[in-house]
Amino acid sequence: MLDLHAATSPEVKEALAKGAVAVLAVGALEQHGAHLPLSTDTIMAQGVARRIAAEIDGLLLPPIAYGDAWNNEGFAGTLSLSSDTMRAIFLDIGHGLKRMGVKALIIVNGHFGNRVAITQAAQALKVEAGFPVMYLDYPGMEAIASKICDSEPAAPTFYHADEVETSMVLALEPQLVRMDKAAAEYPVFPETFGLEPMGLDTFNKSGVFGDPRPSTAEKGETLIAGIAEESVRLIRLFLAKLG
Amino acid sequence: MLDLHAATSPEVKEALAKGAVAVLAVGALEQHGAHLPLSTDTIMAQGVARRIAAEIDGLLLPPIAYGDAWNNEGFAGTLSLSSDTMRAIFLDIGHGLKRMGVKALIIVNGHFGNRVAITQAAQALKVEAGFPVMYLDYPGMEAIASKICDSEPAAPTFYHADEVETSMVLALEPQLVRMDKAAAEYPVFPETFGLEPMGLDTFNKSGVFGDPRPSTAEKGETLIAGIAEESVRLIRLFLAKLG
Amino acid sequence: MLDLHAATSPEVKEALAKGAVAVLAVGALEQHGAHLPLSTDTIMAQGVARRIAAEIDGLLLPPIAYGDAWNNEGFAGTLSLSSDTMRAIFLDIGHGLKRMGVKALIIVNGHFGNRVAITQAAQALKVEAGFPVMYLDYPGMEAIASKICDSEPAAPTFYHADEVETSMVLALEPQLVRMDKAAAEYPVFPETFGLEPMGLDTFNKSGVFGDPRPSTAEKGETLIAGIAEESVRLIRLFLAKLG
Amino acid sequence: MLDLHAATSPEVKEALAKGAVAVLAVGALEQHGAHLPLSTDTIMAQGVARRIAAEIDGLLLPPIAYGDAWNNEGFAGTLSLSSDTMRAIFLDIGHGLKRMGVKALIIVNGHFGNRVAITQAAQALKVEAGFPVMYLDYPGMEAIASKICDSEPAAPTFYHADEVETSMVLALEPQLVRMDKAAAEYPVFPETFGLEPMGLDTFNKSGVFGDPRPSTAEKGETLIAGIAEESVRLIRLFLAKLG
Amino acid sequence: MLDLHAATSPEVKEALAKGAVAVLAVGALEQHGAHLPLSTDTIMAQGVARRIAAEIDGLLLPPIAYGDAWNNEGFAGTLSLSSDTMRAIFLDIGHGLKRMGVKALIIVNGHFGNRVAITQAAQALKVEAGFPVMYLDYPGMEAIASKICDSEPAAPTFYHADEVETSMVLALEPQLVRMDKAAAEYPVFPETFGLEPMGLDTFNKSGVFGDPRPSTAEKGETLIAGIAEESVRLIRLFLAKLG
Amino acid sequence: MLDLHAATSPEVKEALAKGAVAVLAVGALEQHGAHLPLSTDTIMAQGVARRIAAEIDGLLLPPIAYGDAWNNEGFAGTLSLSSDTMRAIFLDIGHGLKRMGVKALIIVNGHFGNRVAITQAAQALKVEAGFPVMYLDYPGMEAIASKICDSEPAAPTFYHADEVETSMVLALEPQLVRMDKAAAEYPVFPETFGLEPMGLDTFNKSGVFGDPRPSTAEKGETLIAGIAEESVRLIRLFLAKLG
Repeated sequence: MLDLHAATSPEVKEALAKGAVAVLAVGALEQHGAHLPLSTDTIMAQGVARRIAAEIDGLLLPPIAYGDAWNNEGFAGTLSLSSDTMRAIFLDIGHGLKRMGVKALIIVNGHFGNRVAITQAAQALKVEAGFPVMYLDYPGMEAIASKICDSEPAAPTFYHADEVETSMVLALEPQLVRMDKAAAEYPVFPETFGLEPMGLDTFNKSGVFGDPRPSTAEKGETLIAGIAEESVRLIRLFLAKLG
Repeated sequence: MLDLHAATSPEVKEALAKGAVAVLAVGALEQHGAHLPLSTDTIMAQGVARRIAAEIDGLLLPPIAYGDAWNNEGFAGTLSLSSDTMRAIFLDIGHGLKRMGVKALIIVNGHFGNRVAITQAAQALKVEAGFPVMYLDYPGMEAIASKICDSEPAAPTFYHADEVETSMVLALEPQLVRMDKAAAEYPVFPETFGLEPMGLDTFNKSGVFGDPRPSTAEKGETLIAGIAEESVRLIRLFLAKLG
Repeated sequence: MLDLHAATSPEVKEALAKGAVAVLAVGALEQHGAHLPLSTDTIMAQGVARRIAAEIDGLLLPPIAYGDAWNNEGFAGTLSLSSDTMRAIFLDIGHGLKRMGVKALIIVNGHFGNRVAITQAAQALKVEAGFPVMYLDYPGMEAIASKICDSEPAAPTFYHADEVETSMVLALEPQLVRMDKAAAEYPVFPETFGLEPMGLDTFNKSGVFGDPRPSTAEKGETLIAGIAEESVRLIRLFLAKLG
Repeated sequence: MLDLHAATSPEVKEALAKGAVAVLAVGALEQHGAHLPLSTDTIMAQGVARRIAAEIDGLLLPPIAYGDAWNNEGFAGTLSLSSDTMRAIFLDIGHGLKRMGVKALIIVNGHFGNRVAITQAAQALKVEAGFPVMYLDYPGMEAIASKICDSEPAAPTFYHADEVETSMVLALEPQLVRMDKAAAEYPVFPETFGLEPMGLDTFNKSGVFGDPRPSTAEKGETLIAGIAEESVRLIRLFLAKLG
Repeated sequence: MLDLHAATSPEVKEALAKGAVAVLAVGALEQHGAHLPLSTDTIMAQGVARRIAAEIDGLLLPPIAYGDAWNNEGFAGTLSLSSDTMRAIFLDIGHGLKRMGVKALIIVNGHFGNRVAITQAAQALKVEAGFPVMYLDYPGMEAIASKICDSEPAAPTFYHADEVETSMVLALEPQLVRMDKAAAEYPVFPETFGLEPMGLDTFNKSGVFGDPRPSTAEKGETLIAGIAEESVRLIRLFLAKLG
Repeated sequence: MLDLHAATSPEVKEALAKGAVAVLAVGALEQHGAHLPLSTDTIMAQGVARRIAAEIDGLLLPPIAYGDAWNNEGFAGTLSLSSDTMRAIFLDIGHGLKRMGVKALIIVNGHFGNRVAITQAAQALKVEAGFPVMYLDYPGMEAIASKICDSEPAAPTFYHADEVETSMVLALEPQLVRMDKAAAEYPVFPETFGLEPMGLDTFNKSGVFGDPRPSTAEKGETLIAGIAEESVRLIRLFLAKLG
């Protein structure tokens, strides 16, 4: 694996000669309650991406530390890029990687709001440039979480500042978690949630969705390891098709 | 100072109540010879930005780790965002900060190629949104460098992977510098350099411009401290005018 | 209800004076096997939209007969608009309705690929113009289908040219259904489906996903009526919040 | 002829094998006085397009039911797409048809305001993709109208909700015409009409330009048949040049 | 009148205090046969615009010397701006004039291909900025030409490098006309002309449409004076409405 | 040399057969104090461009008479195109020249604010179209000015309505210079100048930067001749590399 943040140009040249795949984590700068840092999604995605890159001997790109978190702007500290700007970033990176001689790009997405931009860019890169992009949203997370977590998610597959995310940050950057401020909130989702543009602060007070209190670094490690393992399995299928 | 990477939403809310200014470092993922990491510009800009934020009690944003480094793409490892994408990033961040209640944005630019996007975005944010943006390209660097450096720059105000940059990274992330690979190159600049689009690799072999060998962390620290001090002096003038 | 296709200008003027809501069906021109017409998604969405408009005394707009069906272009007859073009259509319609004095827009979406454009436009119309948009993807369909259908869907919530869709078209435009050509196909979805851009024709032969043979107009009517009823219930909640 | 609204994918595949041409009607959702439906332009264009498609054995696309009718927005019920959005639609359709294997596109335009978008898209499709597009604005209409109509147009070649248009809708969708509400208006055109952006409602009360009262379905049929015949003659010349 | 090419800033300030209207000529760089300069359209438009500005005491802007002359690119020397670029120019100029305090903009268009961009910009400036724009395409030219010209135009209202244009350039810049090279050509227009994108060189050899040989400066002066007179009459009507 | 303003199409055809290079002057419509015309930058750039074209037997294009002079809009008479519009102009011209068969484009820039658009367009033309563009900002001017001028510039390399520019206009269009109104101003530049968007009128009263009073046509001629000579030297180097 080559971490491009730290790598030098000659090292990249050498890796390219062997046929390299790039791994890009995409996060967000977004409120995560009183106990988790704004960069929670970036930290988690980069944590998973690093494991993946290590496993497939990939080029680990610097993470994208901002995301499209429009619906969390009602909470202070959330700072978003628009979906169009995100797409432009992925397009530029994809075209640049192709020019550089990289074989494919694996995007590890840590924030739901980024999906639109990622899938649009991936499609355009395939159609316009023939450059293959795979996008992963923590495959396997739901299964593992349902096994090891002591609390319920606030809604199916909705993980935000809860036991899942808190455990993962505890495993990756424990010094950034303030467990003494961790408090549960199970908001009532309006029935029109997902059917109209809606700020999360219109029905949630603390920014927490679920119960972060039973979180542990051990659970986080289990999640990260499991997600990375499932990701790598899928990536190998994806790469196998490229020939 | 609040480092938004690590801060929580309630902490930002509190800082905003007191009237906060944001500080954003902008770097690049760009070749810097065989001895410096690809993120050299990001590391330096973030190092300076952190000092500034500390001094003015600002909100330190996560750095932009990619820049417009088109003319270094001939060297492996350089991965660019286009100038238009960079501008979109700064516009989104500026508009978002304004909605959040931040008073002004200070951009600490660590890569020459980003200037166009930064000044365009700053002008648009002023005209369209009345949001004040100041952009700094290491003020004072030239004066300090000419005093403390033992080597000459490859061209006036042209610092790339040389004694200035190497010293600064030595001061900030010494573990990422491979001094054993540091070698000097003083390329002959074509007379049409700056008068036509031109890849730097067309007249430079190593990616180094100048002589990094006399670099020391101490010189780096002097540079960073001096640049931060001059930056803060200028920022205070800028903020004073805002009233 | 006013069907704008057939209505006159003075009739619209009168309806606007009473405070009208617009209803827009969005479909696609997309392959649906050998037994269903290319406009299947438009026919179904317009069928549901007409029921809704009747129930809430809305303005029924002419349907959008094209959608973003990129992944079905491997089958002849599929003709797509890009997601950006679709978004532009919804933005123009939303801004136009606002200028006209319409209170809100309800979008009845009949094609999965249109979701991105619809949600992006809805968000922009809310933020930039304060114009409320609700988007519905056949609420209640899954529950009804699981109750009344004799065949299984090809994948969870994946309905395409199957018993659900065929029944709905049988209820709305029976003369366009060729039941003698209806044949079942349960393709094996690649594990990377949904994780990379992928044409459906790469793993499906007939364009059918599931088994359309047990379809009846009666089932279709049950689906349409149930979806319309659930839609109206949600729309009333949405409108109640607007005051 | 294949009506793509009703056709199936295998039928299109078969037609493509023989070398098909597509026909697209473009209309508008626009006020047409108190006696004609808002979709008048779409109904007429589709009526003509259907005749043409039948004659040349073409692929009849679903009509575009919205147009750029900005200057009629002063009358309720007019809902426009911008010229840029219209152009995007035609570009997507043209590129899609090319990918599908269609030989050429014939656009039957029923609304003056669409001309800009249509000609721009046609030029771009020719230059960028080598895809041939012909655009027809009811060739022959003026000659026939001057022969068979009992009333004068409100201005030369200006037909709107008058005897020509009313007759054509009477021939195509008589149930949508309210002849009891038909009334004549011959507005005085300001001398700066056509020399500045100007809403038609600034000098017209009823939305009618001319006298619809002598309209008959028979005249409408004569117009449609004559326009279609002249269109087909021109299309054959156009196609002959393609070889 | 103030010719902004030659005027100073204080002079403009003074004119603005009295309530100024701007006049902008738009031409093209386009082939005009072997006897007329490429800037023929610019020369004529600026000639007319100067008369108008003098008459209404307007601000004469520097002319736009390029136009959208795509269909003449088959002849050497034609150099076009796209319609979108032209529109951007007019939008920038309109917004800038509004900020400057100018009351309205009169566009004198000398090239048919510019109409689209001009009308689109005028509409946008009215809708978005409330800035009034009038656009003139040589009003009265046809009537005068039919009276004084000894030759027929190649097609109705189609004047290109013929007696009309040649006479006007003879009146304005006689030294740029090579009457010894003037030759007539009356091409046969294909029946699909105006119905598909088509280069003029596909049916014309010399670039001349009509017969320039009877041209005289006197006729040109009559045309220019008459067009300017009719233009001023229309402008006064337009300005009167602005109040 | 062929001045395209005056040239005919057959003359261009002949020049192209010999392998022509195009020369384009870019100016601005911008305040230049009470003694210089608004078109000062255009006049100077075209004056230099004409010399260059004569020397290299180039195609002299009509100058672009507008520039991006945003920071001078506080003074009446300044009328800007945005940087994006300027870029679109250069891109269209570059692509058009390439289609025409021109070998390369030399841009002679007379206004600082245009640099961004010019360099962006040049890079895009090289990357996307392989079309070579060179851009010149009066090479040699500083050296000559420091030798022959009797006054100091207001700031290093900052020449605006001063002895340098006034002398050059005196050499080119003496009738447009009002020496009786020439007055000196040496404003105090704010320390944040160049570090934030800033109108020049916020610290300058007259629009003059420096002292135009010692200006003479002779100095102007020396400057123009010297700049043209140095430009031609650099152009020959540039062209030599093209082979």
